Amino acid sequence: MKPLTLSLLTALFVAASPLQADTIATGDLGLIIERAKGSVLLVDQSERATLARIEGLGDLSHASLVYSPDERFAYVFGRDGGLTKVDIVTRTIANRVVQAGNAIGGAISDDGQLVAVSNYEPGGVRIFDADTLKLVADIPTDSKTIGLVDAPGRRFVFTMWDTGETWIADLSQPDMQITKITDMGDRPYDALITANGRTYITGLFGEDGLTALDLWDETPEPIRVLPNYGRGQQEMPVYKMPHLEGWALTGSEFVLPAVGHHEVLWVDADTLQETGRTQTYGQPVFAMARPDGRQVWVNFAHPLNDTIQVIDSVSKDIIHEFKPGPAVLHMEFTPRGHEVWLSVRDAGKVMIYDTRTFEKLREIDADSPSGIFFTARAHRTGL
Amino acid sequence: MKPLTLSLLTALFVAASPLQADTIATGDLGLIIERAKGSVLLVDQSERATLARIEGLGDLSHASLVYSPDERFAYVFGRDGGLTKVDIVTRTIANRVVQAGNAIGGAISDDGQLVAVSNYEPGGVRIFDADTLKLVADIPTDSKTIGLVDAPGRRFVFTMWDTGETWIADLSQPDMQITKITDMGDRPYDALITANGRTYITGLFGEDGLTALDLWDETPEPIRVLPNYGRGQQEMPVYKMPHLEGWALTGSEFVLPAVGHHEVLWVDADTLQETGRTQTYGQPVFAMARPDGRQVWVNFAHPLNDTIQVIDSVSKDIIHEFKPGPAVLHMEFTPRGHEVWLSVRDAGKVMIYDTRTFEKLREIDADSPSGIFFTARAHRTGL
Repeated sequence: MKPLTLSLLTALFVAASPLQADTIATGDLGLIIERAKGSVLLVDQSERATLARIEGLGDLSHASLVYSPDERFAYVFGRDGGLTKVDIVTRTIANRVVQAGNAIGGAISDDGQLVAVSNYEPGGVRIFDADTLKLVADIPTDSKTIGLVDAPGRRFVFTMWDTGETWIADLSQPDMQITKITDMGDRPYDALITANGRTYITGLFGEDGLTALDLWDETPEPIRVLPNYGRGQQEMPVYKMPHLEGWALTGSEFVLPAVGHHEVLWVDADTLQETGRTQTYGQPVFAMARPDGRQVWVNFAHPLNDTIQVIDSVSKDIIHEFKPGPAVLHMEFTPRGHEVWLSVRDAGKVMIYDTRTFEKLREIDADSPSGIFFTARAHRTGL
Repeated sequence: MKPLTLSLLTALFVAASPLQADTIATGDLGLIIERAKGSVLLVDQSERATLARIEGLGDLSHASLVYSPDERFAYVFGRDGGLTKVDIVTRTIANRVVQAGNAIGGAISDDGQLVAVSNYEPGGVRIFDADTLKLVADIPTDSKTIGLVDAPGRRFVFTMWDTGETWIADLSQPDMQITKITDMGDRPYDALITANGRTYITGLFGEDGLTALDLWDETPEPIRVLPNYGRGQQEMPVYKMPHLEGWALTGSEFVLPAVGHHEVLWVDADTLQETGRTQTYGQPVFAMARPDGRQVWVNFAHPLNDTIQVIDSVSKDIIHEFKPGPAVLHMEFTPRGHEVWLSVRDAGKVMIYDTRTFEKLREIDADSPSGIFFTARAHRTGL
């Protein structure tokens, strides 16, 4: 296959060549949070290159972002309550408001018209017009508000740390409807929604287990999950609560980073029953499935956060382990899973790996990088 | 919620306003095949508007296309063997080759570097460099070749109508490896791969049932599916073979448009056993799940092709039926499912509907429209 060999060399050369100035389509771009600098790096996934640094986003410790449906605008949620609209086409800040004292993440509606932010101080959710960032709805909750996600039908779902309630805000009609579900458990600390928008699951800090809601039910009721499992079972200090956003769906199973334990749990997606456990190197922070679901990549809490383990989702065995460097904070797969980008904060690098050969393909300089977000997220629910 | 009411009005106005000239983000764009004219319409999903017509693509009867990872280039596979690379940023044809006498679709590798086309005449698969459209590999099969899909790991999977073999071409190494699976059944006419790239399923023309492969197996073996079901069971003429690309995955079930019958079949995705049937208005051509899986939209073969039925995936009941117009050929959902676009060929219109209220939101003029393809497909396997 000589022509093929040549084409591979060509392909490699293209990947290594300097970025063409005419890169203007946005489907393979992404933003990387530089948490200390208050800036984001605009990157090109295909070129494995940095395009620009955009500064002035405030306090980006524990920051996240969502994308507009056209993959042009990013809405960055800062810890300081700042909501910054970044234009990745012009590479500038299009708009910025400080909407609260202390925020903890946000979401964008399925039609791309509404951006919601959940706040610690004051507690509650505020909803903004995605075009203007004008306040559209203010929803006080008298509680720290966590686990905010978008759901199909112009809805947002979020949960109250203090009161253990989950609220569903439906903005499909001019008059917003709010459904309140009580008894979700003691001090929910995070939540996720499945990619189809059907199942919402909260992690609990104050008691064992988790709580799920079937959003397809007319009147969703709390469903207890793994009621005998959780932080209450063990005495080791919890260095860092695992991120439920990190839950992976592999075929018909979820992978749950265990709270405080050195293991991940496998849970049947239909029955929500435990189907297995895999012992890990440390306390998992993210357990993320490659988009095809065949591998799960796990990073760990301090002081074991220099290591990545890769688990085969069929055998549930660890098939690869390596040390990218100090403080691996986040992972992002390319949309079809052939490569993965890792933030290695204390190395000041983002490292790019082939997910099949595990070969390192590239390092990109970044200032204390944390979250990596590719624009393909624009097309998915709950990200 | 007065502010909300205002924001809705604003949103509607924005949707109706003329498109800004500087819009070059490509995340919410799409192409619509104009089969008679040999042209494609570039459309903006958020604006619900046409941006441009690009002509000169040859015979586009039964045409399909795939997108580059950056959502800039479309590779259009024409019936006449033409492979046309369309630049949706410059709105021009970037390159075009006539690579065979009669083609039947194509695919793009997970890394976006290789474009494959399957051919009737001469039979076989040809693989091209996505940048240059130079031939990279030629794979003669001595058979009409159908059901070509991409699989993770720089692989392509395709099936032979005449010999009933499925081949897996692995281009992850400089020397291409081909794995041949025999005994897939009598005259496979189409195939699909599940969104995770694990299961490949072929429909059979010459015998009942279908045949599946688990691509995660080291040595995949044919798995018979619904062996007692198929065209052999009935005498009504088959007006049009259903499109397996139209298979819908709703939660844990597939929906299969029945061959020659006025019904769709529900199949458990894990066990591949039948779980139910829903009687329909006509012989289904596409049975497509809304991205959240809660609804399945079905169109029908001539002469009943003026009608759409919507099935609830939980109750399996038909919850809505309407007649968009003569010859509804294709459907495409927005990536998060809030709207759907329908090609109504003989009305010369593409019609856009809200998938929850079923309200018609817009009509767009198009010349004999058939396939509708949004750029979000770039990020998915098997599309």
